[in-house]
Amino acid sequence: MKRIAILGSTGSIGRSTLSVAESYSERFQIVALAAGSNLEAAFEQALRWKPRLVSLHFERDAGALRARLKQTGLSDIEVVYGTAGTVKVATHAEADFVVSAIVGVAGLEATYEAVKAGKTVGVANKECLVAAGELITAEARRQGKPLLPIDSEHNAVHQCLRGGRMEEVERIWLTASGGPFLSTPRSEFSSITVEQALNHPTWKMGKRITIDSATLMNKGFEVIEACRLFHLPPAKVEVLVHPQSTIHSMVEFIDGSILAQFSVTDMRLPILYALTYPERIQSDMRFPVGNLRHLDFCPPDMNKFPCLRLAYEAAEAGGAKTVALNAADEVAVAAFLDDGIGFDDIPRIIESAVSASKSGTMGSIAEVLEADAEARRYAQERVFELQKKSAPRATSVV
Amino acid sequence: MKRIAILGSTGSIGRSTLSVAESYSERFQIVALAAGSNLEAAFEQALRWKPRLVSLHFERDAGALRARLKQTGLSDIEVVYGTAGTVKVATHAEADFVVSAIVGVAGLEATYEAVKAGKTVGVANKECLVAAGELITAEARRQGKPLLPIDSEHNAVHQCLRGGRMEEVERIWLTASGGPFLSTPRSEFSSITVEQALNHPTWKMGKRITIDSATLMNKGFEVIEACRLFHLPPAKVEVLVHPQSTIHSMVEFIDGSILAQFSVTDMRLPILYALTYPERIQSDMRFPVGNLRHLDFCPPDMNKFPCLRLAYEAAEAGGAKTVALNAADEVAVAAFLDDGIGFDDIPRIIESAVSASKSGTMGSIAEVLEADAEARRYAQERVFELQKKSAPRATSVV
Repeated sequence: MKRIAILGSTGSIGRSTLSVAESYSERFQIVALAAGSNLEAAFEQALRWKPRLVSLHFERDAGALRARLKQTGLSDIEVVYGTAGTVKVATHAEADFVVSAIVGVAGLEATYEAVKAGKTVGVANKECLVAAGELITAEARRQGKPLLPIDSEHNAVHQCLRGGRMEEVERIWLTASGGPFLSTPRSEFSSITVEQALNHPTWKMGKRITIDSATLMNKGFEVIEACRLFHLPPAKVEVLVHPQSTIHSMVEFIDGSILAQFSVTDMRLPILYALTYPERIQSDMRFPVGNLRHLDFCPPDMNKFPCLRLAYEAAEAGGAKTVALNAADEVAVAAFLDDGIGFDDIPRIIESAVSASKSGTMGSIAEVLEADAEARRYAQERVFELQKKSAPRATSVV
Repeated sequence: MKRIAILGSTGSIGRSTLSVAESYSERFQIVALAAGSNLEAAFEQALRWKPRLVSLHFERDAGALRARLKQTGLSDIEVVYGTAGTVKVATHAEADFVVSAIVGVAGLEATYEAVKAGKTVGVANKECLVAAGELITAEARRQGKPLLPIDSEHNAVHQCLRGGRMEEVERIWLTASGGPFLSTPRSEFSSITVEQALNHPTWKMGKRITIDSATLMNKGFEVIEACRLFHLPPAKVEVLVHPQSTIHSMVEFIDGSILAQFSVTDMRLPILYALTYPERIQSDMRFPVGNLRHLDFCPPDMNKFPCLRLAYEAAEAGGAKTVALNAADEVAVAAFLDDGIGFDDIPRIIESAVSASKSGTMGSIAEVLEADAEARRYAQERVFELQKKSAPRATSVV
């Protein structure tokens, strides 16, 4: 029986993890859940899973949950709140495996503490590897515990890497759907609408990651994540556009052999893989291999998608630059979604914020959070400038 | 330094093995060579590699080689001949690794003896697994030594299998180019010429294997080989047509993940893999992944290519039936190449010979050779009948 703590239990990955646990209830026990501010969902999860511990973001929600659990005779479930509460979930003595799936920098500290506490951590939180990747992977190495990627690309890489040793890896190929604007001319990028950008061809996801997929920044983040997770320089992490998103990623070995992984596009598969690693267990998530017909590929266009280039540059610089990249992207995407700035303003804001940020490595999660806040402030100022300059709709320049 | 013996050193795989040894002369030493009747090539190889032992097919060739080696001051190279000579090469005390690449049943006994002598064997000889697969793989298991496949498909499977344990394999997918008649209507199969059949779209190979690729019998043999090598029932070995032959094969795991292997189509790559396993070493055989554009797939048509169906049936029956399948195919293909029978007579002859053959498992290599000879005689009679019935060119029926 593997005992699981979930950071971000009411989000998409959290719910998929619980769905996997539901399907294999003889194998997995849920011991601790950290949710955000969705009291109703947290209450239902507590009722269903009867964990030892639940954490919510706000103190008042924690109080309300405690009261409702008492009414239903579940007063032995401990309810906590805030960052301290999340850390308590992440380091729960009974948990063997921690799923890190809180969106944004909010999950950083708890994930770091889980790794420090010697837990095996499944990472679905992008910021853990983009902003704090050097810190968290160094700690995992110290602990001698694997960091298991819970996203289709890095999970695919993890699987392909089993075909050899790390010293035998020539390079990694991350596949990218190319997003909705793969064939849109560069000249039309300034007039791309929010609706167009939210229309992702292969995956249904949250809004920010959908926009990040449209700018290819999501693939850029994945390049950084791959560098951190697999200890590779950016030059050894390549991107290949593959519109069907069938092949999730590939590993090229020094002898010239390439291994590729594919499967259905269902997040429960990488979750199951991480939860059962190094074992594999039977699932009903079958890709109909016999129905394969066409797979297409092309190289990414870094001129059309400057976010990808910015990510490579930040990956090379490391430390504070990757923190700024992530922070500025979040601000710029939010501004685009609120219709304040143009689609092609997103890379402009990010480039400006990364360029203005300090460089150097991050010594602690506190430093990461500080650099993050600073980059956010800077990017937000650039957004305000843009909004002032051009009303009703920005089309250019920082 | 790995010390290598090659069975079939002057053939295509033998020469590729020596080419690999040439590129990595610091890693590999050639200690024994078994050639056929190409005296000149054997002499040159002996001069170049100075092995301890060389075997030729004929006694008179062995005598001639001995004399020429003496003239060039290499009289300490022992020269032997015949089946006993080949076995001596296969079991040479100094050899760590034996490459089994003699075409046809001639290599069976030597390969079996190599396995029995506890050598690690790289198998390129189809008959070792199709006709004598049960015997040879059982002996390798007893010895606790791997049988490493030296052909692109099974080598690809071997690589993909590293992504999990054998109990975690759902099924194997062997890819097939589909041969030159993938889009030829069934109705035109009786008028296919030798020239058309020898025109393989992706690989340059010997004549028999090229015809076997055109009938899909080669893929059928590979199904049987996969069953024997990886201890899987035929139902767990599927074939998928993939005209580009880029992906060499795939393994589907029980969790729903599929691993696929690809590389340049160069036999030196699986040879290098087998020779260095479990290590991988740097090669210049690079597949330009960034230039990938389109990969196409479709299911095989068993009605159009009855040889594939016959192979599945023989794989299921095992033992004598797979011996007969291989023997009858060799006879039928030779008859087609000599323009005696039609392309669509090939499966007819094979079906008839397999159906007439005994069933049951093979207890020894001698039994395999006996069953092989019997199936050959039977198939040859069917060929004669066809040639008598229809002159100048057969178009039908056994």
